[in-house]
Amino acid sequence: MVQGKIDEIHGWAAMGPGLEVEPWSYTPRPLGEHDVEIKIEHSGICGSDLHTIKEEWKGTMYPAIVGHEIVGRVITKGEKVLHLAEGDLVGVGAQVYGCLQGSCNACRRDLDPHCPEAVYTYNSTYADGQHAHGGYADAVRVHSNYAFKIPAGIDPVYAPPLMCAGVTVFAPMLRKGVKKGDRVGIVGIGGLGHLAIQYAHALGAEVVAFSHSPNKQKQCLELGANIFVNLANKDELDSVRGTLDYLFITSDSKANQYNDFITWMTFEGQIVVLALPEGQMSFGPREFVRTEVSITGSLIGGVNVLKKTLEFSAEHNILPIIERFPMAQINDALRHVNGGKALYRVVLDNIQN
Amino acid sequence: MVQGKIDEIHGWAAMGPGLEVEPWSYTPRPLGEHDVEIKIEHSGICGSDLHTIKEEWKGTMYPAIVGHEIVGRVITKGEKVLHLAEGDLVGVGAQVYGCLQGSCNACRRDLDPHCPEAVYTYNSTYADGQHAHGGYADAVRVHSNYAFKIPAGIDPVYAPPLMCAGVTVFAPMLRKGVKKGDRVGIVGIGGLGHLAIQYAHALGAEVVAFSHSPNKQKQCLELGANIFVNLANKDELDSVRGTLDYLFITSDSKANQYNDFITWMTFEGQIVVLALPEGQMSFGPREFVRTEVSITGSLIGGVNVLKKTLEFSAEHNILPIIERFPMAQINDALRHVNGGKALYRVVLDNIQN
Repeated sequence: MVQGKIDEIHGWAAMGPGLEVEPWSYTPRPLGEHDVEIKIEHSGICGSDLHTIKEEWKGTMYPAIVGHEIVGRVITKGEKVLHLAEGDLVGVGAQVYGCLQGSCNACRRDLDPHCPEAVYTYNSTYADGQHAHGGYADAVRVHSNYAFKIPAGIDPVYAPPLMCAGVTVFAPMLRKGVKKGDRVGIVGIGGLGHLAIQYAHALGAEVVAFSHSPNKQKQCLELGANIFVNLANKDELDSVRGTLDYLFITSDSKANQYNDFITWMTFEGQIVVLALPEGQMSFGPREFVRTEVSITGSLIGGVNVLKKTLEFSAEHNILPIIERFPMAQINDALRHVNGGKALYRVVLDNIQN
Repeated sequence: MVQGKIDEIHGWAAMGPGLEVEPWSYTPRPLGEHDVEIKIEHSGICGSDLHTIKEEWKGTMYPAIVGHEIVGRVITKGEKVLHLAEGDLVGVGAQVYGCLQGSCNACRRDLDPHCPEAVYTYNSTYADGQHAHGGYADAVRVHSNYAFKIPAGIDPVYAPPLMCAGVTVFAPMLRKGVKKGDRVGIVGIGGLGHLAIQYAHALGAEVVAFSHSPNKQKQCLELGANIFVNLANKDELDSVRGTLDYLFITSDSKANQYNDFITWMTFEGQIVVLALPEGQMSFGPREFVRTEVSITGSLIGGVNVLKKTLEFSAEHNILPIIERFPMAQINDALRHVNGGKALYRVVLDNIQN
């Protein structure tokens, strides 16, 4: 059996509810024959990381090393790993295991995030009881099916946000078939939203960016938006009301906004919720049924969707706008993101390049 | 120009908000070259009729002759009507005009209920300002595109409920592609629900009927349900939780039920709302996004969907269970429906056959 090269993984863990992480190390699980050992070069910060370490979503298992936008080099591979070589640059997203069997009702439909055996990248437990730890660390071991080669055209430091934010916005566009001629709204121009503009534009759609920050207008148009709507300007909003085929909600919304979102849509328009609103989602049924609008949530994306996301991003030169912090300044970076100051995505560097 | 045979249409109109209708007549609009004049034989009562005459939905224009499940004989046709002949048995549903032009964003997608020029069967206004009046009457004039030949295999008296209740439940099944192997839940076993069971069964799906009335179990199984769930029995409900690919909500639901409905669904399950719940629809976002369930409203169906509904109903011998009232006893019939006593759909007869 192949041995891993790293006996102890050094990371930054939350030891209890709060925003602070501190140095903490763990002994990695034995390197399985299908596993790879990855030396982490860059690691993105996702809003889910903060919700988890602050235990805003119940059930955080401390100590918890979070981070599920991981990019690094394969340094060791199990004997049955054929599609990756040592030295390969790979990315890991929010999931590290799914059965991927044709007999699985989820995996055979490319919905492996719903596989009953799914293990997520952190705050999750393997079948053998081992806890999964994430990317705020110097290394990680994962099943090789969930280590994705980063296409040559993508600069490694820009790749982490594609592994979660990117696939999260692109997956529902793929699944729903967003195409040329569709009018696509993106509400919330942040980590997810600024990528969503790029994907929708590259798919040929007409993109409407909605924001409360008029100073984001120029950037939105540069990223590919055709129309920018300042949400404080009623006339601007009214001019697009009733016209959207899709609306991607990429920022925390308020419960009472859904009645308004519905009026932005054309009949049979589809609202996709990518960020959890505060409180209950609530809307009046009459306009909803009359317009035949649909509302759906979307999680991450499975193996095949993640591969397509990376290929499509490379092909269309879709890159996140990032701010970089050395891994040692991780607590500054977390406070920066928590304070809503990130423009648009933050990457932690173990190496500078 | 062809003249209609009937100078005055005699019907039963609501004169103001309330449950009562009374004899009232109106002069029909001139018979257009594409119109047909129909002598009404049978007319169904739909929940929407009651909401309209009681003005529970704002904006009823009194006097209002409602009724949009109409079956009768063509007695006169405009000179450009080629596909119908005098004597043909036809049905009219909830819509009487749509442009049906390829240039129309709605009509070219078989979504003519959303056509900007749509005229509904009652409480609606033609472009020339004439009010449309419905089926609680002895006759009606409509555009021939919206008069559908009733297939020979369907007994005329059973046809009215297919024109609204039938197409309302079948349209979203068609659009979403309900098929063999899918598990389909129907909640609310009434006028819509008892038809939904039959359509889903005929499409090859496994059907789960949900009801608070255990005495409906036998009938549900006879109509094609595979499983009956008594909603008062937690174990029965738990046994199907997390398994539904589709859920059709065919009865008035309470705002707070949506959190529970979501737990009935498998991942990416689709909830279709066919009856307006009281109050706001409301649910927690976390389970909703995690399961990637979708919620959508559905209205009626366009011309092509209505044709398919009638063909499919004839082919699979799908018929409503009805109670019959002579047209002269219409107020008894309305009270019967309003009191929730109808099993399952009520048809008013101008003729006995």
